[in-house]
Amino acid sequence: MRSSRRDADVPALVEAARGGSARAVARLVSMVEDGHPGLREVAAGLAPHTGRAYVVGLTGSPGVGKSTSTNALVSALRRRERRVGVLAVDPSSPFSGGALLGDRIRMEEHATDPGVFIRSIASRGQLGGLSFGTPQAIRVLDGAGCDVILVETVGVGQAEIEIASLADTTIVLLAPGMGDGIQAAKAGILEIADVYVVNKADRDGADTTVRDLQGMLGLAGRYGVDPDDRWRPPIVKTIASRGEGADDVLAAIDAHREWLEKTGGLRDRRRARAAREVEAIAIAELRARIGGLHGGSTPDSLADQVLDGELDPYSAADRLLRESARETH
Amino acid sequence: MRSSRRDADVPALVEAARGGSARAVARLVSMVEDGHPGLREVAAGLAPHTGRAYVVGLTGSPGVGKSTSTNALVSALRRRERRVGVLAVDPSSPFSGGALLGDRIRMEEHATDPGVFIRSIASRGQLGGLSFGTPQAIRVLDGAGCDVILVETVGVGQAEIEIASLADTTIVLLAPGMGDGIQAAKAGILEIADVYVVNKADRDGADTTVRDLQGMLGLAGRYGVDPDDRWRPPIVKTIASRGEGADDVLAAIDAHREWLEKTGGLRDRRRARAAREVEAIAIAELRARIGGLHGGSTPDSLADQVLDGELDPYSAADRLLRESARETH
Repeated sequence: MRSSRRDADVPALVEAARGGSARAVARLVSMVEDGHPGLREVAAGLAPHTGRAYVVGLTGSPGVGKSTSTNALVSALRRRERRVGVLAVDPSSPFSGGALLGDRIRMEEHATDPGVFIRSIASRGQLGGLSFGTPQAIRVLDGAGCDVILVETVGVGQAEIEIASLADTTIVLLAPGMGDGIQAAKAGILEIADVYVVNKADRDGADTTVRDLQGMLGLAGRYGVDPDDRWRPPIVKTIASRGEGADDVLAAIDAHREWLEKTGGLRDRRRARAAREVEAIAIAELRARIGGLHGGSTPDSLADQVLDGELDPYSAADRLLRESARETH
Repeated sequence: MRSSRRDADVPALVEAARGGSARAVARLVSMVEDGHPGLREVAAGLAPHTGRAYVVGLTGSPGVGKSTSTNALVSALRRRERRVGVLAVDPSSPFSGGALLGDRIRMEEHATDPGVFIRSIASRGQLGGLSFGTPQAIRVLDGAGCDVILVETVGVGQAEIEIASLADTTIVLLAPGMGDGIQAAKAGILEIADVYVVNKADRDGADTTVRDLQGMLGLAGRYGVDPDDRWRPPIVKTIASRGEGADDVLAAIDAHREWLEKTGGLRDRRRARAAREVEAIAIAELRARIGGLHGGSTPDSLADQVLDGELDPYSAADRLLRESARETH
C-alpha cells in the first residue's frame, strides 16, 4: 500500500477492507471524507460486495445518551455474533476527530474487537452535506462485511432529519426530564422514527415521557403492525448505561425489518437512497467538471457572452451541461 | 398579462419592465424567487438589455443601520437623477415579505418614486442560496433601466460573505458601541469590504471604532489607490438617519468603480459573477432534469443496478449526467 494520498492502491485497500482490516476501512472512510479522487475506483471495487448490511440510524437531542445507546446496541449485537459498523456523523464540524473523542473513549470496550468497526465522518463543507459522503462510508463498512451499521448523528437540526433517508430503520432517542425536548422535537424529528427509545428509563419522569409521546402520536396501545399493515412505531424503554433494554431495541428493529421486507418497503427505501446518492455524486461530478473546464476557456467565454448580452445564463448553463457530459474518465 | 402563474406572458412582462413598470418588475422578481418555469424565457428576453447597472452590496451586523443607510444612499442617488434598484436579500427566510416589512416602511419615502424599484427576495430553501436567485433578480432590475442596484443582506453569516461575490463594490457597515462586533466580524466580513462605513458617527466611540478598524487593517492614512495600484478600502463616517455622509459614500463608490474600470477588475468581477450564475443554473437544471427523468424510469433503474451491485454509484452518476445532457427544451 503506497502512502501518497493521491496514489492510494485502491484495489489492495478494497481487498484488505473486505478481509477485515480495520486500517484499510479507516483509510477508505478517510478517502470518502476527503472527497479523494480515488473514490470512483473505490466505489467500483466495492460495488459487487455491498448491499448486505442493514443500516440503523440513531438520532436525538444532545444529552439523551446517543453514544451510550450505540455502545449498548453494539454489545447486544456482538452477543448475537453480528459484525457491526458504527458511523458517527458530525455535521457541525468540517473535521472529524476532536468532537468525537469523547465518544471514541466511551466506545473503547469495542475498540479492540475485530468484529466492530468504529468510524467518524465530518460532513460540514462537503457538497450535499450528509447525502454525498455518508452513503459512500456506509458502502465501505458494508463491503467490509458488517451485518449491521449503526449511523449516529452527533449534530442537531437538519442532519437529524436527513439521517432517516439514509437508514433502513431510524431510531429516535428521547430522555425523561427533557419535557420541552418533545415539543421542540415535534418540528420534524418525531415523524422520522421507526422506533422510539426512551432512554434513562430509571429516572423520574420516564413514564410521563412515554405517555406524552403516546399522546402526541395518538398511538396509545397500537404498536407494531396495525390491521391495515401500516407500521406503528413502538416505544422502547432503556437504561443504556447498564445495557438494559438493548435487546428490546434489537427486537423492535427486527420487527420493523420484517415488516419492511414483507411489504417491499426495504427495497423502496434502498432504491430511494441509491438514487439520492447517485444524484449527489452527479452534482459533485458536475461541479468538478465545471472546475476542470475552467482549465480550458469554456466557462470564461460563456461568461463573457452572458456579460455581453449575447447569451442568456440559461442557454449558457445548457451549453455547460452539454460540455460537461462530453467529459470522459 | 395573463394571471396564471404558469402562463406568464413573459415577452409582455419583460417589455413592461423595460418600460419602467414597477408591477412588471415585481412580478419578474417573484418569478425568480419562485423558480418559475418561465425564467428561461425571462433571461433570454432580458439578456440584450442588461450589463449597464452598477451593483453595490451592503452588509453588516444587525443594528448597524443597513436599511437607514440604504435609504440615505437612495436619496443621494436620486438627487443625482440616477435610477435606483434596491434588492433586500433575506437568506434566513423562505418567504419574503414579513421580515422585511419594517424595511419597506422605512423606505416609504421612495415607494412612490418611479425612479426607484424596491424588491425583497428570500433565498433560503433556494438551490444554491444567494447564487441562484440573486443574480437573476439583479438582471431584472438591470433590464428595467436601473443605473445603480443596492443589494442589502438582511441576514448574517455566510450570506454576508456571498454578497461580495455578487457586487461590483461591497460596503461593510459598522457602528460604534459594537466593539466586539469588529472582533466578531473579523472572521471574514472585514476582508470583503471595498468601502467601510462607520455609521452613527455622532455616537460616543465612533472615532474609536474608526481607529480600531484602521489598526486592524493596518491602513492608517492609506486609503484609495496606493502607489502599487492596489485598492485600499477607505473608511467613511456617516449619520445615515440624517443623510449625513451619503455623498461621501457615493464618492468612495465612484473612486472604487474608477479604479476597477482602470485596472480591468470590473470585467473580471462580472465575468466571475456570470460564471457562478451559469454554474448555479446548470446545477439547478441538472436537479430538475433528474427530477424529470424520474417520470421516466432512468434513475430508478440506475438505482436498482446500484443496489444489485451491477453498477457503482459513480458510473451511475456518469450515465445520469449523459442522460441529462440529452434532454432538450
